[in-house]
Amino acid sequence: MPIDPNAPITITAYDWVPDFAKGQVRDLRVRWALEEVRQDYAVRILPQGGQKEAAHRALQPFGQVPTYEEGDLTLFESGAIVWHIAERFPGLMPEDPAGRARSLEWLFAALNTVEPPIMDYAIATLFEAGEPWSAPRLPSVEARITERLDEASARLGDADWFTGRFTAGDLMMVSVLRIIEGPELLAPYPNLVAYLARGADRPAFGQALADQMSGFTGSPPPGFDEWMAEQKASTGVMT
Amino acid sequence: MPIDPNAPITITAYDWVPDFAKGQVRDLRVRWALEEVRQDYAVRILPQGGQKEAAHRALQPFGQVPTYEEGDLTLFESGAIVWHIAERFPGLMPEDPAGRARSLEWLFAALNTVEPPIMDYAIATLFEAGEPWSAPRLPSVEARITERLDEASARLGDADWFTGRFTAGDLMMVSVLRIIEGPELLAPYPNLVAYLARGADRPAFGQALADQMSGFTGSPPPGFDEWMAEQKASTGVMT
Repeated sequence: MPIDPNAPITITAYDWVPDFAKGQVRDLRVRWALEEVRQDYAVRILPQGGQKEAAHRALQPFGQVPTYEEGDLTLFESGAIVWHIAERFPGLMPEDPAGRARSLEWLFAALNTVEPPIMDYAIATLFEAGEPWSAPRLPSVEARITERLDEASARLGDADWFTGRFTAGDLMMVSVLRIIEGPELLAPYPNLVAYLARGADRPAFGQALADQMSGFTGSPPPGFDEWMAEQKASTGVMT
Repeated sequence: MPIDPNAPITITAYDWVPDFAKGQVRDLRVRWALEEVRQDYAVRILPQGGQKEAAHRALQPFGQVPTYEEGDLTLFESGAIVWHIAERFPGLMPEDPAGRARSLEWLFAALNTVEPPIMDYAIATLFEAGEPWSAPRLPSVEARITERLDEASARLGDADWFTGRFTAGDLMMVSVLRIIEGPELLAPYPNLVAYLARGADRPAFGQALADQMSGFTGSPPPGFDEWMAEQKASTGVMT
């Protein structure tokens, strides 16, 4: 689906993020869902810092992206937006109650059970990499991730998707598992590695990722490069 | 609603948790939702460790409670279950698209934006209280919580609820904000303190809490009391 400034759906995205966040900003999840259900959309790109200003906070009280506008309807939180898209357009949500339940439970499991320890690890190795307590703490964070990966791998078994056919639940499970940096934590789970590859191979995902990347035309804020160099030179936690 | 062993809905809960978890186990969220929509339910109490056994993992791959069974329909993840209840029975979800959108976005914001730093703080002060890196790290966790509280407080203003009238979104926002231990972090936000009190004053919440508490008739696993004493005697992070 080409991005269309006159489309009835508008989302928001950033014009710049650090390299480590490119391909991970959460508008990707919404773009992917829109591609899967073949809906055109427009993008309002926020300039550096625009997400913290009052105009954007009126749509998104936590000063983040994405937001979603469709006529009079506005939504924030990528999980809520993906769920809305799955209900609004055919393609990401089975119609039978059991299929719907599988999609719903895996969407929430991704966001509230699987993602928190993975984001914790990302915070520890990126924003807190220079703190003296960060490296000694990492094994305990890794243990929490590994527990979830053990359980997810056991449940997936040799199935293609967690929810039967690919649904909003799998879209979100792929989205949170791919935050895991580096191959070490995932390598013991060949079925999860194959699952991630299966998700990334979907044409809708490829298009959404390319479109997110093409929106990063801005420059870092003053001082960012120096901060980043300092982090990298510090305790060596940074991935 | 009395708990009824012959009710068409069955949830799972624990027969024992540590004192600090009593009143916080996530079946409370589901009990609360069922009370709000006035549905009887049965409870299958899992004995110590039962949540990690194959029979329960067939329903809940991450070995947690609650689960939800209603005829042939099964669900896990309290967020998914609360959303299902809100869609299935009148009372927790407005019918107009805007009201529905508000409920949906705050349900997800509670679980994916507000709860993660709050749970992080709980892990740091409970399970990791004895680790040497836990206390020095707390200020950075507190800063993440405070940022979210600032934003939530600004959005709530002098309204009673985040979603207009009380809906599934507010049920979940109250549920995650009340995890915050001690009054210090919340005290700067009188409107959030009043919001929490308003949630806890709902008769449906009171009934759900009393029913969760009455189910804790089991005993701690061998060695638990010693572990707990050790944590408390350690670095003093423990709340």
